[in-house]
Amino acid sequence: MTSQGKAAWELLLPAVEAPARRRGRALQEALREAVRSGRLTAGTRLPSTRALAADLGVSRGLVTEAYEQLTAEGYLRSGRGAGTWVGEAARSPALRPGGTAAATRARGGGETGASTAGRDGQGTPPGGFARGGHVGAGQIGTGHVRAGHIGAGHVGAGHVGAGHVGTGVRVDFRPGTPDLSLFPRAAWSAAHRAVLSRLPHPALGYPDPRGLPELREVLAGMLTRRRGVVADPERLVVCSGVAQASTLLGFVLRARGLDTIGIEDPGSPEHGRLFASTGLDTVWLPLDEEGLRPGALAASGVRAVVVTPSHQFPSGIGWSAERRAELLDWARAVDGYVMEDDYDGDFRYDRAPVGALQGLDPERVVYAGSVSKSLAPGLRLGWTLVPEALLDEVVERKRTMDLGNPVLDQAVLAEFVARGGYDRQLRRCQRAYRERRDALLTALAEHLPGTRVSGIAAGLHVIARVPGRFGPPERFLARASAAGVALRALEEHGTARPTDGDVRLVVGYAHLPPSALTTGVRLLAEAVGATGEG
Amino acid sequence: MTSQGKAAWELLLPAVEAPARRRGRALQEALREAVRSGRLTAGTRLPSTRALAADLGVSRGLVTEAYEQLTAEGYLRSGRGAGTWVGEAARSPALRPGGTAAATRARGGGETGASTAGRDGQGTPPGGFARGGHVGAGQIGTGHVRAGHIGAGHVGAGHVGAGHVGTGVRVDFRPGTPDLSLFPRAAWSAAHRAVLSRLPHPALGYPDPRGLPELREVLAGMLTRRRGVVADPERLVVCSGVAQASTLLGFVLRARGLDTIGIEDPGSPEHGRLFASTGLDTVWLPLDEEGLRPGALAASGVRAVVVTPSHQFPSGIGWSAERRAELLDWARAVDGYVMEDDYDGDFRYDRAPVGALQGLDPERVVYAGSVSKSLAPGLRLGWTLVPEALLDEVVERKRTMDLGNPVLDQAVLAEFVARGGYDRQLRRCQRAYRERRDALLTALAEHLPGTRVSGIAAGLHVIARVPGRFGPPERFLARASAAGVALRALEEHGTARPTDGDVRLVVGYAHLPPSALTTGVRLLAEAVGATGEG
Repeated sequence: MTSQGKAAWELLLPAVEAPARRRGRALQEALREAVRSGRLTAGTRLPSTRALAADLGVSRGLVTEAYEQLTAEGYLRSGRGAGTWVGEAARSPALRPGGTAAATRARGGGETGASTAGRDGQGTPPGGFARGGHVGAGQIGTGHVRAGHIGAGHVGAGHVGAGHVGTGVRVDFRPGTPDLSLFPRAAWSAAHRAVLSRLPHPALGYPDPRGLPELREVLAGMLTRRRGVVADPERLVVCSGVAQASTLLGFVLRARGLDTIGIEDPGSPEHGRLFASTGLDTVWLPLDEEGLRPGALAASGVRAVVVTPSHQFPSGIGWSAERRAELLDWARAVDGYVMEDDYDGDFRYDRAPVGALQGLDPERVVYAGSVSKSLAPGLRLGWTLVPEALLDEVVERKRTMDLGNPVLDQAVLAEFVARGGYDRQLRRCQRAYRERRDALLTALAEHLPGTRVSGIAAGLHVIARVPGRFGPPERFLARASAAGVALRALEEHGTARPTDGDVRLVVGYAHLPPSALTTGVRLLAEAVGATGEG
Repeated sequence: MTSQGKAAWELLLPAVEAPARRRGRALQEALREAVRSGRLTAGTRLPSTRALAADLGVSRGLVTEAYEQLTAEGYLRSGRGAGTWVGEAARSPALRPGGTAAATRARGGGETGASTAGRDGQGTPPGGFARGGHVGAGQIGTGHVRAGHIGAGHVGAGHVGAGHVGTGVRVDFRPGTPDLSLFPRAAWSAAHRAVLSRLPHPALGYPDPRGLPELREVLAGMLTRRRGVVADPERLVVCSGVAQASTLLGFVLRARGLDTIGIEDPGSPEHGRLFASTGLDTVWLPLDEEGLRPGALAASGVRAVVVTPSHQFPSGIGWSAERRAELLDWARAVDGYVMEDDYDGDFRYDRAPVGALQGLDPERVVYAGSVSKSLAPGLRLGWTLVPEALLDEVVERKRTMDLGNPVLDQAVLAEFVARGGYDRQLRRCQRAYRERRDALLTALAEHLPGTRVSGIAAGLHVIARVPGRFGPPERFLARASAAGVALRALEEHGTARPTDGDVRLVVGYAHLPPSALTTGVRLLAEAVGATGEG
């Protein structure tokens, strides 16, 4: 036995101090770790089972079992009459920058526990997501977002609104998240209990990739009623949200030979990243106050486009009936498809929501929505209504991606909708969000007078155009950031770069109580030197 | 007003019989449907609001509102002084074979309700899935499963074990599903309640695509302890199961330029379909009784391979330590990767489970597992441990696929594991499945004497080799099917076509209580004419 070996045997001693019933496993783990860490190098001969058992003060059977187990696993080798030695198979894991695997593990340990669940673990500030996913800087402002951007800087801090967020965020006006405190925990819990008590055992097996039939049925009914879509349950595919609906569609279109897809300008750069992951490049298509500019589609050469006609994101306009009709005419003419991202179609304050585009032509429009704004993004539950011609391909793609959504979640949502909980939740949110919108408008008028606000009729955000005298934009954003007010500039959402000196912001308000909205606007006004002007 | 129009107005009458508070919406829905269905054709002029209100006996405001709403949505058009007419935008949905959309909807309605939740809705018999997904006929027995098979015959009946399943399945021996009645409903429900009462609001926001930090932490601990892996929480990605882990890895490898991946022969054709969806072709690699045959990897030219070394699927062998070491040597030599599908590593009956291959070289092995065998496939919860070099790409791919797993499910599993529920569940299953295995072996020995059974040391299935005197295989399978005994032939899992006349079956037993196993084997014996021989 070498002295290196000797040291290693001593390292095994703490393991055998474990309680008797865990001693065998502890010894095996300690031996495994000694081989992995290189403390026992390849070729090192192990002591006989008798000798090691005596050294460690344990039964010989325990040592024999450990040798056999680790030999079966490939850590040790043995030969008839040749004893046991350390094999060459094991390798240590590579280190992440900044520490050993063990240190990383220890750091990870500090994240355990409820208070850091969710986004805290990834270092992303609350509210830092646009509908359907993250929005980042860096790919904005180019006419094309190229495919193949995967793998760089994708998770975590600094990804959202980079440059305009200071270290200590006091008020976060960035759009994309609803008020998570409105999540109906008691009703959701009751629905979960009801589902677990009634669901037959076979329902816990592999799911239908299209979704639970009972959920497709109630969602189809709900969407027909609330959104004016043609919602045949056979055409409805349950998915994890609009982001997954985008990826599903992207893969299907790519497999059909498309290589580009149009997105609205201003719009959602995140759509670009999602479609890039499926091999599709995105092309910005300019909007005016009625919808896509006439001729833009034809000139672009695309055969698919993603739009938000009910409440355009981020501009807040509703597409005119003419532009809706033109869009569908175009789709029929080029044998193309329109994806309708109905991300907040349920929230309209001045009148009934405008019916979805999909209702006008279910064979050209892929409709997608989710519970991310109405309940919580963390549920990862959504739906897509798919034209007949694409249905089988979308379902098969869904199957290979994840085999289908979790069954219990689907059954709970079905129960929740069927009990009327979903309608109640929407009414509750609608009331709360209308009040918040009004508080925001009042505060802006008071503290940043002259600010023009648009897109207020619906949704969870508005566009605020702050007069240039509080600017210029760069200084405005820098000062806000320094004061702890997180903002999203409109130019992060498209290619337009107005030079009139006004500051254009996409202001999310749904996640903030009225008092926070008022405080936030006042903080902002102070930061940009508007104090006293209101 | 044309007579066609007249008829249409009459069709609106039932709508306005709705209770007063729903009358407006009902009128709008009826008008929308009349346009969509073509009852009101494009260009048809609508009556004045005054005239229609009088006809229908409702307030003029109601009609005005309906006209405005449908005009905003694009169904109707109007012009100053020109009245209102039906627009050209709307199109009816295409019909699915066998009925109108409405009829399909009605049929769908028959599926609503608890008793048909889950697989009943897709017409797939219970037990009809192999680990990680469906196994189908049709692509088996070729040396390569080509990419691009998406979109044909993907969902539902006849997909599994086609040809060997009669109309009325009385006993289903096909492998892949655990006993769903063992799902710990009460403990799961309690964990769900606990989570909903403690989870902070922000945790309900967009998830970390890698998974909830607290879940990654407890899973890493559990896997280190139970499976001997190197499980750094920073390297663990929560996903929807082994199927998604395969797709994630497939996309990442494809983006790195690989175009093929090796799978075990016999093995899992479903792996082929999953990787095909990512653009990778699969190559069968022959096994012997110790693992992959020496030289097979080098000869194949692949640089990635999927294996099941702990309990090979379906043969049931455990890979020898030498073959494990050889596999890792190969991976290092070609700068390649090994995916370890640890689909049932937790179920071992004669001794402690063999530690996972990943523990030997965490930088070459992508480890994947799930709760599909231990809890329920319907939960769609699994994990993958990823080499440092692939981690960022896998996480970004997970993000674009679905933004991350549902948060509540993850928190519930974390709670369940942390409370010791997972260990208890595994002990419970282990006891039940060992008893079932023994019942199966006893029944086979009694009713089909001479049957040789292998792969019995672990897992949820065995290989049964029934002597040729009960055959030949084709007749054996046909008779079983006619008697309502669903079987899976081993040859569906690989390229081997033995000509010795014996019938080789992959027999799943975990989902069947001992009495059903005994009954099933007796039924089978009677069907193939073995009665009395035992």
